Amino acid sequence: MAQVTRPRELSSPERLQAFTDAVVAIALTLLILPLMESVGDLADEEGTTAEWFDRERFALLGFALSFLLIAVFWVHHHRLFRVVRRVDSGLLWLTVGWMFTIVWMPVATALSTQMHPDWAQPLVYIGTLLATSVMLLTARLHLRRHPDLHTMDRVESAAGIRSGAIVAGLFFLALIVALIAPGLGNLPLILMVASEPLQRLSTRRLERAATA
Amino acid sequence: MAQVTRPRELSSPERLQAFTDAVVAIALTLLILPLMESVGDLADEEGTTAEWFDRERFALLGFALSFLLIAVFWVHHHRLFRVVRRVDSGLLWLTVGWMFTIVWMPVATALSTQMHPDWAQPLVYIGTLLATSVMLLTARLHLRRHPDLHTMDRVESAAGIRSGAIVAGLFFLALIVALIAPGLGNLPLILMVASEPLQRLSTRRLERAATA
Amino acid sequence: MAQVTRPRELSSPERLQAFTDAVVAIALTLLILPLMESVGDLADEEGTTAEWFDRERFALLGFALSFLLIAVFWVHHHRLFRVVRRVDSGLLWLTVGWMFTIVWMPVATALSTQMHPDWAQPLVYIGTLLATSVMLLTARLHLRRHPDLHTMDRVESAAGIRSGAIVAGLFFLALIVALIAPGLGNLPLILMVASEPLQRLSTRRLERAATA
Amino acid sequence: MAQVTRPRELSSPERLQAFTDAVVAIALTLLILPLMESVGDLADEEGTTAEWFDRERFALLGFALSFLLIAVFWVHHHRLFRVVRRVDSGLLWLTVGWMFTIVWMPVATALSTQMHPDWAQPLVYIGTLLATSVMLLTARLHLRRHPDLHTMDRVESAAGIRSGAIVAGLFFLALIVALIAPGLGNLPLILMVASEPLQRLSTRRLERAATA
Repeated sequence: MAQVTRPRELSSPERLQAFTDAVVAIALTLLILPLMESVGDLADEEGTTAEWFDRERFALLGFALSFLLIAVFWVHHHRLFRVVRRVDSGLLWLTVGWMFTIVWMPVATALSTQMHPDWAQPLVYIGTLLATSVMLLTARLHLRRHPDLHTMDRVESAAGIRSGAIVAGLFFLALIVALIAPGLGNLPLILMVASEPLQRLSTRRLERAATA
Repeated sequence: MAQVTRPRELSSPERLQAFTDAVVAIALTLLILPLMESVGDLADEEGTTAEWFDRERFALLGFALSFLLIAVFWVHHHRLFRVVRRVDSGLLWLTVGWMFTIVWMPVATALSTQMHPDWAQPLVYIGTLLATSVMLLTARLHLRRHPDLHTMDRVESAAGIRSGAIVAGLFFLALIVALIAPGLGNLPLILMVASEPLQRLSTRRLERAATA
Repeated sequence: MAQVTRPRELSSPERLQAFTDAVVAIALTLLILPLMESVGDLADEEGTTAEWFDRERFALLGFALSFLLIAVFWVHHHRLFRVVRRVDSGLLWLTVGWMFTIVWMPVATALSTQMHPDWAQPLVYIGTLLATSVMLLTARLHLRRHPDLHTMDRVESAAGIRSGAIVAGLFFLALIVALIAPGLGNLPLILMVASEPLQRLSTRRLERAATA
Repeated sequence: MAQVTRPRELSSPERLQAFTDAVVAIALTLLILPLMESVGDLADEEGTTAEWFDRERFALLGFALSFLLIAVFWVHHHRLFRVVRRVDSGLLWLTVGWMFTIVWMPVATALSTQMHPDWAQPLVYIGTLLATSVMLLTARLHLRRHPDLHTMDRVESAAGIRSGAIVAGLFFLALIVALIAPGLGNLPLILMVASEPLQRLSTRRLERAATA
């Protein structure tokens, strides 16, 4: 009977990883859809390539930024899943939630680069990034509560949570700034440059604590 | 000569799984296409992000619902394939049929969220979900008839079939309600909340029978 | 130096398979694009779901047919690659050519279901199917010439080539019929129902020859 | 503590390969999007399949060329990753950069086949190809500096770098020609036919040097 009622191991980490990879790869590639469409539109007006670059400057920037951000998120997700041994229901649905925010990214990017600017625009883009990082952070917290699911020791787990909290915290801060000063657009994301130094600071502290 | 005529093992479960994963991942991601298009359309009218959210409320809801449902279907399919050892012609084509209903989902979702409401709309959406669940249930029944294809014992197999029958039965019930009262749209899907309690009830009975 | 000049093993069969799977899965899913677009178009005219089904009957049929055909092609390709041990340059490029015809399928389908009928329409659709089957047949012939690439014995290899030649031959026949009577559209594809009986006939002969 | 601070192994080569494969497969397939759209457009004007082929001649050529080029790039990337044992941060981000240029290819192709010709058009297309080849060459140079990441010996590594430098050099030459004579369009790419003879020449020299 044990097999009927086994509640924890719902999926192999490998297959969930492969599925996640496919979803991220598609979202990454669908970022070009608005660019493809604008090529078609300008072609109808007998436009040239130089004109297209001039007109789509902002869309190109948005495409490059979102590509980079999704790649960074994928790397973070990937690093976490390297130490996952088993997938329980909680981790499964947190991963589905994380994928939802990734699939939403091309829409957030299109809104961010194509719409007439308003207060909602930066909130949607930065809010999506916040949601992605919170999903991953929650997955890390879930793993800490269930040591049987992974191969991290306490120190590694704590380092990961700290690192995820720094990223989520900075996105939250950027969201607050965007809420106060919507005229800045997605500029508050510049706060993310603080992520790397803060991470390094946190690691150093953690190491000092461990050797103490 | 045995190898020329071996009729049963047509595909490795791993490769069929990987192919299924890719198809589901793409269908999941293509759900955003109507949203992407509506961003482009509203951008042409100099609309703002807030206006877009207001106008696409229903499409957003449909996107989120279909994303969730495809994810749930994937999890169910995935759980079943974890115990599959070999793939015969029947299982292969049932999986292709299942994939067909998944690939159709973005179209059913687009019809459900973009069209002027009529009697056919909820039938198509709920009918698609019914078809997906019936395909998986048929795969379970096929596996029960061919014990050499999987590693489930009788109790597990019966539990899976019961569970699949509950889901398919509830979708069927929702379809009937939608047929009688088309004005409700996709609301009859609310019947699906009965799935979890019914599953638990069925599991308890099964366990009692097994221990008896 | 052996490693610099090794000319034969250019790719692992597993990775080439995985790549092929991804390409086929995407082509399979992109078949819905014209349907998605027509939903958007009819939505602009305040159409209903029932009207859409009525108007897109032919496109729906084409979608289902192409889905089925790509699935069948995938199964055939997949069965062949189960016995491939190593991939040389010839097999690699034949697989790329095969993928090219698969990626082209959504375009051939769109032409077949959306365009005003003319003599070229059935030629393109049936010609694409012929090209796919010829690519796979050529891969089989290539494998026969290079026994070090696969694990098939002579009987299996001959059976596969016979089977592939039957399929390609029937597509060729359908193409000829379409050339002579373009008014039939894709109807000459009905010749493919002869594939199964011809295959069985060929297998029986092969077995008789083997036991003789 | 070793595990917290291990800076080098960030990703398994297998998973990075699988992710890369998915991205390339999608980019390869999205090349058909402009063709799909033009089918829809001409269908609105009651056009025929023959008319479509006549009108889209150039777009079809561009599709076939880009399909071939992406396939070639994939094969080169794939060959390199067969010898990669571990992935460090540098290799990871070089691969992300390489993927970026691949995802950009459908846009460059659309610009190249749909826009009114201008000086920028060939620069974008040939420049994209140059960027892809430079990314792979840089990855090769990175691997040479870090022997712990791969299983190539010095001779193999040098051969790969020479080969990559020849390809990148020819793309650069083609870019220069396109800059001087923009009226030629993408014709300077014909220089790439020199790649194979130059490679063979370089291999022969390398072998002579090794046996000397």
